[in-house]
Amino acid sequence: MTEQSRADSLAQLRARINQFVAERDWEQFHTPKNLAMAMIVEAAEVVEHFQWDTPQESIALSEERKTEIGYELADTMVYLLRIAEVCGIDLIAAANAKIDLNAKKYPVEKARGSNAKYTAYQDQ
Amino acid sequence: MTEQSRADSLAQLRARINQFVAERDWEQFHTPKNLAMAMIVEAAEVVEHFQWDTPQESIALSEERKTEIGYELADTMVYLLRIAEVCGIDLIAAANAKIDLNAKKYPVEKARGSNAKYTAYQDQ
Amino acid sequence: MTEQSRADSLAQLRARINQFVAERDWEQFHTPKNLAMAMIVEAAEVVEHFQWDTPQESIALSEERKTEIGYELADTMVYLLRIAEVCGIDLIAAANAKIDLNAKKYPVEKARGSNAKYTAYQDQ
Amino acid sequence: MTEQSRADSLAQLRARINQFVAERDWEQFHTPKNLAMAMIVEAAEVVEHFQWDTPQESIALSEERKTEIGYELADTMVYLLRIAEVCGIDLIAAANAKIDLNAKKYPVEKARGSNAKYTAYQDQ
Repeated sequence: MTEQSRADSLAQLRARINQFVAERDWEQFHTPKNLAMAMIVEAAEVVEHFQWDTPQESIALSEERKTEIGYELADTMVYLLRIAEVCGIDLIAAANAKIDLNAKKYPVEKARGSNAKYTAYQDQ
Repeated sequence: MTEQSRADSLAQLRARINQFVAERDWEQFHTPKNLAMAMIVEAAEVVEHFQWDTPQESIALSEERKTEIGYELADTMVYLLRIAEVCGIDLIAAANAKIDLNAKKYPVEKARGSNAKYTAYQDQ
Repeated sequence: MTEQSRADSLAQLRARINQFVAERDWEQFHTPKNLAMAMIVEAAEVVEHFQWDTPQESIALSEERKTEIGYELADTMVYLLRIAEVCGIDLIAAANAKIDLNAKKYPVEKARGSNAKYTAYQDQ
Repeated sequence: MTEQSRADSLAQLRARINQFVAERDWEQFHTPKNLAMAMIVEAAEVVEHFQWDTPQESIALSEERKTEIGYELADTMVYLLRIAEVCGIDLIAAANAKIDLNAKKYPVEKARGSNAKYTAYQDQ
């Protein structure tokens, strides 16, 4: 089996990752439960990059930091795609559906400029 | 400004999310530091779905659970895309580069069927 | 300033950690926000230890693994104590109060042997 | 079995939690793997409290927020104590040992006032 070349879309990326996993016979470890753990471990590596930063320092990133953060985001995305894969979830469809829900929870006229959790609006 | 219609690709999804944020004037809260926190909170909601499951229960998901997990994965992806956006990172390119690195760290002949961390191979 | 000797209680441990931080002039980085990030990074290192384990493997730990896990739990506890410190929270009192609440949310007769989230009981 | 009264120390708190779990026959769910997941879910609820805060807002907490954060810290500590319990780890001893290690990794004269990761010192 030849290593698939560069992925140019989310679907190709998912296929490339699936092949990577299959070649190593790792599907046996990839239960949704284990993959959820692996994903949050990678998300924590993103958090670790920023933990002692001031807000400003987290914005003004060197090229070196940007590359490292890109790798951590990539690892998080790899496990996100694997969970979607093994659960049979269409991630783009799920994201569209969730954004539709969020648009109702956070109507523009009430949410503008506010970081209040949406439950703060519901009694108004 | 009209709500953008359904996204069909990662690039369109990123654009739809950016518009959602801009309409609510939320860019001011979206430092990389804050977004990393928001992303791990969503990743934890994925973990919460599976925390008491046996491995088998985490595989045999009802349609209802699949929908809920899809929403949590969507929320995680939304913040992943926002971090990439505000940091100026091309997520597909970063993922390809990281998979190239992983292919070296976990060569097929050594990694096959093993869940050992890659550092276990390096002295061999 | 002499390094405080071994702590034998939670209060002594909290004092030892406070001294460690003060000697390094690290209070300036220890906002509740930053400490919450640091704590979840350490909690993720605990998760990482178990991510590919079967339930049985996570129970049958070697002495070596037990030592490593003890260090990760220690790091998590250090930041937990620091958050309590900088927020002015009495952790033992908060834990007693929370367990009192949990005892009402999960009454013995309904919760026995069930891993259902407590909201599952509330309509009954 | 009567509910144990208020705990006044870490050892008593651990005993109170163990009793709470035993009365509900929940030991069967409390593998180290599951408990690590539950702990990070609670740690994420601490993170959620602070995610959109400025550093200053995370310091100037209302009494209401302090109470809520205390509950989330308590939940995190409950699972931390349960992991230690089921793994047979003495948490106070582990914390003392880890602080001894940290004191070597971050010597006062080099670490003072710096948030650099300790690996930054090692080549000097």
